[in-house]
Amino acid sequence: MSVALIILAAGKGTRMQSDLPKVLHEVAGAPMLVHAMKAGAAVDPARTIVVAGHGAEAVAKAAQGWDADAEVVLQTEQLGTGHAVAQAREALAGFEGDALVLYGDTPFIRPETLEAMVAARASHDVVVLGFEVADVTARYGRLIEDADGALTEIVEFKDATDAQRAIPLCNSGVIAADAALLMDLVAQVGNENASGEYYLTDIVALARAAGKSAGVVRCNEAETLGVNSKVELARADALFQAAKRAEMVADGVTLQMSDSVYFAHDTHIGPDTVVEPHVVFGPGVTVENGARIRAFSHLEGCHVSRGAVVGPYARLRPGAELAEDTKIGNFVEVKNAVIDEGAKVNHLSYIGDAHVGARTNIGAGTITCNYDGVFKHRTTIGQDVFIGSNTMLVAPVTLGDESMTATGTVVTRDVPEGDMAVARARQDNKPGFARRMFEKLKKKKAAQAKESK
Amino acid sequence: MSVALIILAAGKGTRMQSDLPKVLHEVAGAPMLVHAMKAGAAVDPARTIVVAGHGAEAVAKAAQGWDADAEVVLQTEQLGTGHAVAQAREALAGFEGDALVLYGDTPFIRPETLEAMVAARASHDVVVLGFEVADVTARYGRLIEDADGALTEIVEFKDATDAQRAIPLCNSGVIAADAALLMDLVAQVGNENASGEYYLTDIVALARAAGKSAGVVRCNEAETLGVNSKVELARADALFQAAKRAEMVADGVTLQMSDSVYFAHDTHIGPDTVVEPHVVFGPGVTVENGARIRAFSHLEGCHVSRGAVVGPYARLRPGAELAEDTKIGNFVEVKNAVIDEGAKVNHLSYIGDAHVGARTNIGAGTITCNYDGVFKHRTTIGQDVFIGSNTMLVAPVTLGDESMTATGTVVTRDVPEGDMAVARARQDNKPGFARRMFEKLKKKKAAQAKESK
Amino acid sequence: MSVALIILAAGKGTRMQSDLPKVLHEVAGAPMLVHAMKAGAAVDPARTIVVAGHGAEAVAKAAQGWDADAEVVLQTEQLGTGHAVAQAREALAGFEGDALVLYGDTPFIRPETLEAMVAARASHDVVVLGFEVADVTARYGRLIEDADGALTEIVEFKDATDAQRAIPLCNSGVIAADAALLMDLVAQVGNENASGEYYLTDIVALARAAGKSAGVVRCNEAETLGVNSKVELARADALFQAAKRAEMVADGVTLQMSDSVYFAHDTHIGPDTVVEPHVVFGPGVTVENGARIRAFSHLEGCHVSRGAVVGPYARLRPGAELAEDTKIGNFVEVKNAVIDEGAKVNHLSYIGDAHVGARTNIGAGTITCNYDGVFKHRTTIGQDVFIGSNTMLVAPVTLGDESMTATGTVVTRDVPEGDMAVARARQDNKPGFARRMFEKLKKKKAAQAKESK
Repeated sequence: MSVALIILAAGKGTRMQSDLPKVLHEVAGAPMLVHAMKAGAAVDPARTIVVAGHGAEAVAKAAQGWDADAEVVLQTEQLGTGHAVAQAREALAGFEGDALVLYGDTPFIRPETLEAMVAARASHDVVVLGFEVADVTARYGRLIEDADGALTEIVEFKDATDAQRAIPLCNSGVIAADAALLMDLVAQVGNENASGEYYLTDIVALARAAGKSAGVVRCNEAETLGVNSKVELARADALFQAAKRAEMVADGVTLQMSDSVYFAHDTHIGPDTVVEPHVVFGPGVTVENGARIRAFSHLEGCHVSRGAVVGPYARLRPGAELAEDTKIGNFVEVKNAVIDEGAKVNHLSYIGDAHVGARTNIGAGTITCNYDGVFKHRTTIGQDVFIGSNTMLVAPVTLGDESMTATGTVVTRDVPEGDMAVARARQDNKPGFARRMFEKLKKKKAAQAKESK
Repeated sequence: MSVALIILAAGKGTRMQSDLPKVLHEVAGAPMLVHAMKAGAAVDPARTIVVAGHGAEAVAKAAQGWDADAEVVLQTEQLGTGHAVAQAREALAGFEGDALVLYGDTPFIRPETLEAMVAARASHDVVVLGFEVADVTARYGRLIEDADGALTEIVEFKDATDAQRAIPLCNSGVIAADAALLMDLVAQVGNENASGEYYLTDIVALARAAGKSAGVVRCNEAETLGVNSKVELARADALFQAAKRAEMVADGVTLQMSDSVYFAHDTHIGPDTVVEPHVVFGPGVTVENGARIRAFSHLEGCHVSRGAVVGPYARLRPGAELAEDTKIGNFVEVKNAVIDEGAKVNHLSYIGDAHVGARTNIGAGTITCNYDGVFKHRTTIGQDVFIGSNTMLVAPVTLGDESMTATGTVVTRDVPEGDMAVARARQDNKPGFARRMFEKLKKKKAAQAKESK
Repeated sequence: MSVALIILAAGKGTRMQSDLPKVLHEVAGAPMLVHAMKAGAAVDPARTIVVAGHGAEAVAKAAQGWDADAEVVLQTEQLGTGHAVAQAREALAGFEGDALVLYGDTPFIRPETLEAMVAARASHDVVVLGFEVADVTARYGRLIEDADGALTEIVEFKDATDAQRAIPLCNSGVIAADAALLMDLVAQVGNENASGEYYLTDIVALARAAGKSAGVVRCNEAETLGVNSKVELARADALFQAAKRAEMVADGVTLQMSDSVYFAHDTHIGPDTVVEPHVVFGPGVTVENGARIRAFSHLEGCHVSRGAVVGPYARLRPGAELAEDTKIGNFVEVKNAVIDEGAKVNHLSYIGDAHVGARTNIGAGTITCNYDGVFKHRTTIGQDVFIGSNTMLVAPVTLGDESMTATGTVVTRDVPEGDMAVARARQDNKPGFARRMFEKLKKKKAAQAKESK
């Protein structure tokens, strides 16, 4: 059965106190919208329709940045969830299969839950995702089932009887149905209610009235956590981090002070790698088994191979590719650069837009000067090269295998294999100059001190 | 009504195990004394009298560093709180108005509480701050009120009957009264008690005996938290941080891992700014809306404007002024420097005592050489300048608009507008030199290895 | 009485999901094996026998790295704790005294506990370490004592009656006995049980049967915590950190955000030192009273004296020796170097294999070029020296007292006392060059933009 995701992502999120559309606020380095899309990927959707409104352009960019095939439809006025779903009508015209409605501000739905919903469509025309609430005073709508487990009604909390309120089964809002039926039903939803909105929820009653069946799939309450404020965003991120840390440790990663490590939604680390305290992972990082990420390191969009040692205080930016047994040391930034097996960049360096050959040693204070103010250029360094401290590599430039640079050299021309590049003024020791200079400065200071009295 | 603050700050704090006077230990980057002064500022005091004793010079410096008009009186012997207040007699001679007695080791009293105390003086001659204790076994003195809510007595816990101990209303020690009356009362306090000290608390009984009225203002127990040891200091700081983080997030700041961010007492951040994990704010920082403070950054005494991006690993020191859309990158230190709109300092640089013009790009490894061993000098860089990597700017020096420096240049003379400064030795490639050098070193190593067997 | 430690350290620890032998996983910067050896040191052992198996070579290296006199015996097959202890027979042949059996994966036994066990040998032939379990459903073996407090039996949980299971006194496995008797008893242990292993526990019954007496010494349950997985390792490390932080603060150290500081097992800090947030201590660090370790610093194997200020972002590596009132600033790495009284290295420098004299000031961007690709060399800097920014010190090299280097100088020859070394190309300002260059680049960019349309 083909499935189309409809992801509601039009809200402004006034309580977020932000110019950024609500669904673009990030949990673990990814917009909440992307979390919803990632979960939805579990049902292998044929189509993904994002219903955007506030900040639609930015929302579209984020959605298509994650999945280039995502389609974006516009909800120019926010008139309720039923109205939002209805905006997908044109996009889904002629689509044969199911529609699954998700929310862009609900980042924790598990893939397994959505798989279960799609499977449950075999038994019911409309499938609603419910959860057993821990606190029955919570003001969620209640799902009323009959003796056979069919969903007969969704009752808003304020309309519910005491007996209904005592039922812990609540409505998450996530719904699956045949796409054409869904469009048919939302078209019938009215807005004669206190807030004047079109509620998606109403389709269950409409479906039942039309002789269709409805059923419930259950998930954990935690999966349905929505985010409406910065406080809730902080809580969501903290929950994500706690779960990810526990998963990492269970999978055999050594976290020395797990509460101090920040993971992105997609961080992958092999077992038997040690992560020291105070490490931040941005999106797109994979670390193989048996590496070591030392304290105060910051990694984004990079790959770290077995036996590599990163940090402390190493910053790996997107495109950093560390081969096995490489070493990136303190106060070193690597960006868009391949570091081949056994190469070392130990101190105070910037390696950007570069290739560093195997076993090459980059001296402290080395900088690839990759930017001329407008364009970026590449630096290519061969194998077994020795780059002296404070070498400036003015790109584009190439250094051959087994070449060398003298300390403090500005390299502007290629260095052939086996050669040494040197650009250096002769050292001159000026006798007594320092001592005279110190005397002069001290006298000046004394004079100033006297004057200021 | 004019108010004079009397802040008791004479204690040594033996349990602090420190050479520093107790009230100078810091919570969130400010001495506890300053926290008390900040709270006291809520009543717009006409006078602030700090009663100092141990480390009086350092205490005076801290007090006057915060409020240049603060007066310091000396309590040479520590004979109790009543005796401490009495030291303000001379300073307050002729002062007409109220006196409010605060404690330099009680940093959490809220401004609203002190406003309430001053207001309550309309109804009572002496106003005592009380709090309802959570744990009635706590050995605080009890405040006994009559049916009309007047304070009749303060009973020390050890002297209290079981019925009195069951009363949860406890004495905080904070007191407001007419200044002249207060001085009159403390003069009557005796020291005939087990510890031979003069207790400020005794003035309530003396006031009542003299036909004066006394009343209670209530605050939260948490406000009265005093600090007597490093353990309590750590707890106080942790409480402060938790409250500040919650306040920040409620105000619309995004904190990615709030427990890893350390705030100063006066940190101000606008809504919609993102603070990544592991950031430390020292005193005197303001960040406008919509900036981004990236991981591992350290800010003190600086201003960050809208759209600026700071870090990761950026250190902003006092006097750093970042205009809109500036970028300070990794391993960069900025001190006493204005960075104009759109300027960038992306990597491994030190910018101190400088002005960087709009849209100027500072290459990696650039250093403003501002110190000659005795004096500091300024560097002035114009707009749209391109500073090549590893440029040394030997101050005082000025670079005109749209000027440029070549990589590795030591700039000792001004660079006119539109010019390029270059100071560089010619690159020479010595054929085969590197390979021969490697061979020689390897042979030497092999020889040594052989010898050491 | 002479004591021999027998430390069982042969297990693979399959649940650790690691190539590293279980006992070598680290808690607070030391292998768990070393924690056991440190605790054992309390009884001043005459001999230390480590029973190794999986990764025996690495285990031996770690054991002897901590205590060069530790002896390692091999248990080639892991057939149970009784079998493991039996491997020490040959090593202990002729040894007169007690044997104390410890476990390499139980890092929290307190020295006082082991002292108590050795003392208890005066009353009993065999002494077993027990603990009162908080949760009596825990499936530990139970220690059964008679009315006189003698240990009559150790009953495995699965064999225990309900009455026995209700006894909270559990077996930790730690045992002390006369060494010869212990060897005699383990030789009698059989493996006729479900798992076919030889259990050390069985010696109590054998001893009693032979008319020997047995007794129990009690410890806290927390001391017996064993580590079998990365999850338990993380928990053990967290418990260690919490205890160490509490101990530090109680001893008068100021920790600004204690949860963000990571300590090693042997970190020593004097009272009245302030440790700011986000500091990591590796092994072998001592900090004297009244120093300040600023945020984001990383220290290993170093000594920091009174009044020294370290960081923020300072990295002290093994062999860094900071004298009083020194200052190591941001993005500075110090390795195997003595920094004499009052000397300063404030920014962006690498000082390795060096001696820096008193009051010397090292300018920003200074690097000791200590490595020629094969060998390391030393740099010696005198007193009152002024090293200009971006000085490269190509070791081996010596700078005399009161000497100076000009900014950007590569120092390859010694600098005599009072002299100034300078190696610098003359600055040339090329008129209009920058402006023309910017124009050219902009045109090129515009052309490319046009082309790509």
